[in-house]
Amino acid sequence: MALGRETAMAKSLITIDDFSIGEVNGIFALADEMSAAMPDQFGLCRGKVMASLFFEPSTRTRLSFETAMHRLGGSVITVADPKATSLAKGESLADTARVVGSYADIIVIRHPWEGAAQVVADYAGIPVINGGDGGHQHPTQTLCDLYTLKKERGPIKGLKIALWGDLKYGRTIHSLIFALAKFGADIIFCPSPGLEVPEHIIKKLVMEYGGKVEKYQAQNLAGKDVMPLDAIYTTPTSPHQLAMMPDVNVALELKGGLDALYVTRPQKERFTAAEGQQDLKKTYQVVDKKLLKGKAFQKALVMHPLPRVDELAYEMDADPRSMYFAQAARGVPVRMALLAYLLGAKNIRADSQEDKALPKPDYPVYRYESGLRCPNPICVTGQPSEVRYIRHEFKMVNFKPLTLRCIYCEHGFEPKFIASTEWHEGKLATKTYHSADSHWLKKIKAENLIIFDSVEAAQAQGFKANHLVGGGLEKK
Amino acid sequence: MALGRETAMAKSLITIDDFSIGEVNGIFALADEMSAAMPDQFGLCRGKVMASLFFEPSTRTRLSFETAMHRLGGSVITVADPKATSLAKGESLADTARVVGSYADIIVIRHPWEGAAQVVADYAGIPVINGGDGGHQHPTQTLCDLYTLKKERGPIKGLKIALWGDLKYGRTIHSLIFALAKFGADIIFCPSPGLEVPEHIIKKLVMEYGGKVEKYQAQNLAGKDVMPLDAIYTTPTSPHQLAMMPDVNVALELKGGLDALYVTRPQKERFTAAEGQQDLKKTYQVVDKKLLKGKAFQKALVMHPLPRVDELAYEMDADPRSMYFAQAARGVPVRMALLAYLLGAKNIRADSQEDKALPKPDYPVYRYESGLRCPNPICVTGQPSEVRYIRHEFKMVNFKPLTLRCIYCEHGFEPKFIASTEWHEGKLATKTYHSADSHWLKKIKAENLIIFDSVEAAQAQGFKANHLVGGGLEKK
Amino acid sequence: MALGRETAMAKSLITIDDFSIGEVNGIFALADEMSAAMPDQFGLCRGKVMASLFFEPSTRTRLSFETAMHRLGGSVITVADPKATSLAKGESLADTARVVGSYADIIVIRHPWEGAAQVVADYAGIPVINGGDGGHQHPTQTLCDLYTLKKERGPIKGLKIALWGDLKYGRTIHSLIFALAKFGADIIFCPSPGLEVPEHIIKKLVMEYGGKVEKYQAQNLAGKDVMPLDAIYTTPTSPHQLAMMPDVNVALELKGGLDALYVTRPQKERFTAAEGQQDLKKTYQVVDKKLLKGKAFQKALVMHPLPRVDELAYEMDADPRSMYFAQAARGVPVRMALLAYLLGAKNIRADSQEDKALPKPDYPVYRYESGLRCPNPICVTGQPSEVRYIRHEFKMVNFKPLTLRCIYCEHGFEPKFIASTEWHEGKLATKTYHSADSHWLKKIKAENLIIFDSVEAAQAQGFKANHLVGGGLEKK
Repeated sequence: MALGRETAMAKSLITIDDFSIGEVNGIFALADEMSAAMPDQFGLCRGKVMASLFFEPSTRTRLSFETAMHRLGGSVITVADPKATSLAKGESLADTARVVGSYADIIVIRHPWEGAAQVVADYAGIPVINGGDGGHQHPTQTLCDLYTLKKERGPIKGLKIALWGDLKYGRTIHSLIFALAKFGADIIFCPSPGLEVPEHIIKKLVMEYGGKVEKYQAQNLAGKDVMPLDAIYTTPTSPHQLAMMPDVNVALELKGGLDALYVTRPQKERFTAAEGQQDLKKTYQVVDKKLLKGKAFQKALVMHPLPRVDELAYEMDADPRSMYFAQAARGVPVRMALLAYLLGAKNIRADSQEDKALPKPDYPVYRYESGLRCPNPICVTGQPSEVRYIRHEFKMVNFKPLTLRCIYCEHGFEPKFIASTEWHEGKLATKTYHSADSHWLKKIKAENLIIFDSVEAAQAQGFKANHLVGGGLEKK
Repeated sequence: MALGRETAMAKSLITIDDFSIGEVNGIFALADEMSAAMPDQFGLCRGKVMASLFFEPSTRTRLSFETAMHRLGGSVITVADPKATSLAKGESLADTARVVGSYADIIVIRHPWEGAAQVVADYAGIPVINGGDGGHQHPTQTLCDLYTLKKERGPIKGLKIALWGDLKYGRTIHSLIFALAKFGADIIFCPSPGLEVPEHIIKKLVMEYGGKVEKYQAQNLAGKDVMPLDAIYTTPTSPHQLAMMPDVNVALELKGGLDALYVTRPQKERFTAAEGQQDLKKTYQVVDKKLLKGKAFQKALVMHPLPRVDELAYEMDADPRSMYFAQAARGVPVRMALLAYLLGAKNIRADSQEDKALPKPDYPVYRYESGLRCPNPICVTGQPSEVRYIRHEFKMVNFKPLTLRCIYCEHGFEPKFIASTEWHEGKLATKTYHSADSHWLKKIKAENLIIFDSVEAAQAQGFKANHLVGGGLEKK
Repeated sequence: MALGRETAMAKSLITIDDFSIGEVNGIFALADEMSAAMPDQFGLCRGKVMASLFFEPSTRTRLSFETAMHRLGGSVITVADPKATSLAKGESLADTARVVGSYADIIVIRHPWEGAAQVVADYAGIPVINGGDGGHQHPTQTLCDLYTLKKERGPIKGLKIALWGDLKYGRTIHSLIFALAKFGADIIFCPSPGLEVPEHIIKKLVMEYGGKVEKYQAQNLAGKDVMPLDAIYTTPTSPHQLAMMPDVNVALELKGGLDALYVTRPQKERFTAAEGQQDLKKTYQVVDKKLLKGKAFQKALVMHPLPRVDELAYEMDADPRSMYFAQAARGVPVRMALLAYLLGAKNIRADSQEDKALPKPDYPVYRYESGLRCPNPICVTGQPSEVRYIRHEFKMVNFKPLTLRCIYCEHGFEPKFIASTEWHEGKLATKTYHSADSHWLKKIKAENLIIFDSVEAAQAQGFKANHLVGGGLEKK
């Protein structure tokens, strides 16, 4: 299909992985420089136009981006109400991206669909910044978080950061986890019951950042004197002995003191109907003075992406450990630095030794049109207005078991059936499909692989079942 | 009534007729000049404020106007959500216009009521640009369309342009038809069934632009090898022999090749309830590669005002004939030129020989307060918030039959009854009214005419029926 | 409680009382200066950012503030739709204030809750301007009103101003009443039946501005030749003999001629359910040419804060007495002057002899946490998102009867019971409470006072009733 998708994409920030450690540090150095001489920045982006497209409620992110652009002397065009746009007439994101891309110099987008910012970046032809896409990522919030950690605690490498609350739907959490892992911090997961970190994120952590994740029974470890605990991720360069005597050492680890406690709001607007009925908010533990009297928290920064509702007590506002308003305030210089960098108004020193040490996964991409679809219901690729043009692509991130990751929303899943393009070229009799977990997976080259997620999809393309598929008898 | 309406109105753009051919060409020359040196334009409108009042959903129009103003160095105040304004408290358009007119230097308005932009222009005291008023007009879209035609095909005179899809509700279509006629293009109407060009527009075409409209039976002409066809408008300076052998020649005409195919979206948000139930979208033919393989389309530009939904296939996006994204992108320099011109920041050479050749209709205006109202239900003059002050006026565009045109929404209609102001001055006995299609019409001077649309209205003003009215026996 | 509330608050404009007479006159002189050389003001606030937070519908106020900021060369960030913000996620005003306060240089806020602007000023750390908070105040509208009076009639002292229509819910009215009193104007109250000035405002007028309020039976005084009349407030420096022969003199007073008639819209969006059913709009008298033919109105300016609906006839628009569009237009220079002053871009001469002559009430503040709450249902202090942190405080504005005034919404009320902190320190037996109107009130020092509004509240804190409370036998 002729898709008209831009071939030369502008430098964008869609997930936190789009920026190297060197780039992030460069942005931070620029933010420091700008903070120190704020009035001098006015005029830096004179004549440039930022499109601020917010298809979900926002105060903080939108207003801080707009403030940042104004402080650079640039102009802003805004969509703050999704109902007041052409999307209400059924326009696709690709069309909106192309049109706005022909007006403005840079786009900031927030959208409820996961992967939406990637689609906009694919078609806009100008730099795009993800201001939050569903439960996927919110990379500029992560920049503000890291910037605060760095300013308050120095290098992030080796810091112990506890993540607290809704680790399932908090997109700020998902961006932050990967960033902390990349920078070499240790992460302690303290989810509210039922709101644990999604499995695909844990898998990505292990596979791509090389660290180690230890899971615990919350009831064993999280005594009232410590905290609810689900898992600890430790970076490869800071080995722990947790695995040997986990129960004891975790407690020790925590008693050694956290560097920061990152609290999140229950993202109830993303809860499923079933979750809404379970009332997960009831078991959501409030972070207050009493909780933070524990030894582990003595020097811990208290962080929160805001807005807060009830999960973080107002009595903490005057506590010197509380950093959440400083986090928000730092959003302006960080976003100024980011805008100036992506608009080419400022250069940064982006080379870093640390980046060279990081693993660089280079997964093969699955593009064959076999009807395979991302199973995530809020992925951008499944929306009626987008299916008309979208190219379904998946990274093959694992072969044992076969695991695909949508290139838009980054959800991972294990498809059921496989076949080969080679076998049936003119040889109809061999046009058979197999279980994805059968020994055939090893025999088919990645570039020849055809993948199906259902019997119907395989049959629709003229494939017949291998006679062993049905009985589950295929050799593994 | 003392209405306080401004007597000296600022130069505005409400319908495409407000600009002469010379002015349009001058705007285009300025747009070319600005495109070539975009950064130099910043500062041209420094210190000027544009009010962007959008009382209907919009992305493209609003954002491109706002971008244009910013690229000129001006400022923007925006209303993007009608529910968040004083109109929600029942304020009239006239009051809004007067107040915003005392704040800003220029107003861009989009509104669901037809004629709304005219009312705003009447009261604002500053230049007003119509950004779309109901199904009436959208003149700046037309400027972008003409600009694209001119840049891609040279002079518009003599071009053959097919209009495709919803020709009933598409306001961009209505502005475009008159502009094409004025510039001397031939127009081929290809409506989706049930969405034909309204009769009052066809009439205006014939009466005011001097051209010829030939109507065809779609079933006869529109073979599968050609296209659905409703009528052809040909300009007076390019006479055709269509009328002599219509069936043959239309096909020939089309086979000769179109210069542009202008596709439109079904404006389902304007469909009547009955139309919604008929599901006019089902018979709406999609424009795709297959359709455009026809010889007639070989060199045709594919145009669309956007947003599109399903009527124009995404596979066309990479086709070199496709112009719709270029049309949108050109909205910025065209609107920059327009703003700079209306704000007096730039002059244009507006004189043109072509304008002198155009017919200049000078219709008498009917202003007598006889209770006559525009029958268009979404005309601004019939809305509860506006009837408190509005002056009902109509151009008398025809006397055989008597045809009035609302000066706001430009709907034409044929009222039923007439009388004379002369007859009853002190002579009560002769205070009678007559059928509008009777011979009395010729006997009453235009300036003495009283017009009623119902028996009740005539009686309310103390008129009695001529004894022949009831029986329909009045001499015609 | 550690609230983190800012101790050093920036100069703000929350109620009209926040500005002295000298400051108001200084603002007006600056507005004159700016009007005379509008283009020279561009650049005065270059690089400054104004946050425009409108949580209720507005055209005029928001757009005129934004225009003002743009004409000063500053930038604007806007929230125009409450549903599109983090408040929709349950964020408190204090958090919003703190975050936006760390982005912008000045905040303009409109909110449906009374006292909301005060809360924002308490936490923002930057200047805050109240753009209207429920039915409480709208001080910048008042500045525009006073500016128009001053420009059209010279000094405000001694002017006779009639206030017409909805004097109960019109927040512009409440700000205006105190301002007129402070400047020494006489006020004639002409409410629509059922929409009289609230009692707490009348009380404040008498207690704090030293004037005199005379009430009349509307049926006696307001003959059809005069106007509906409820009360007259006269300033102490312009004594009248009204009290001696009220009926006669009021008529005389009015026949002497008004300087201005200030008309207001029925604020039906604030009507209670019962008021909605009574249809107070039916008895709302329209101000039109006929009414204004009366001798009292011969030279009266006709003013209105806009938007108008039906209460002021359009036929008045062309009348030279009509000032409402001029009032609106003057909003831009007045707000420019205000912004420049609060942002420190311009100084004003704020000293005035008149201020020295004004009474300066210095009421003791009641802060004891006895569960006492402001009874106003739309006071900011009672809202679920705000009770988590708000400090309930009341000015003790009277002791006979004991009267408290909420420091946020300024509603006054008379609580039922009192006790003393002294009595029960270690002396449990004496922990009793008394009627607020008993003789005990005099015996307890203000700083020891504990106040309850219900038996339950007193009991909840361990207090028992004085044995005489129940029977209402306590000595008064």
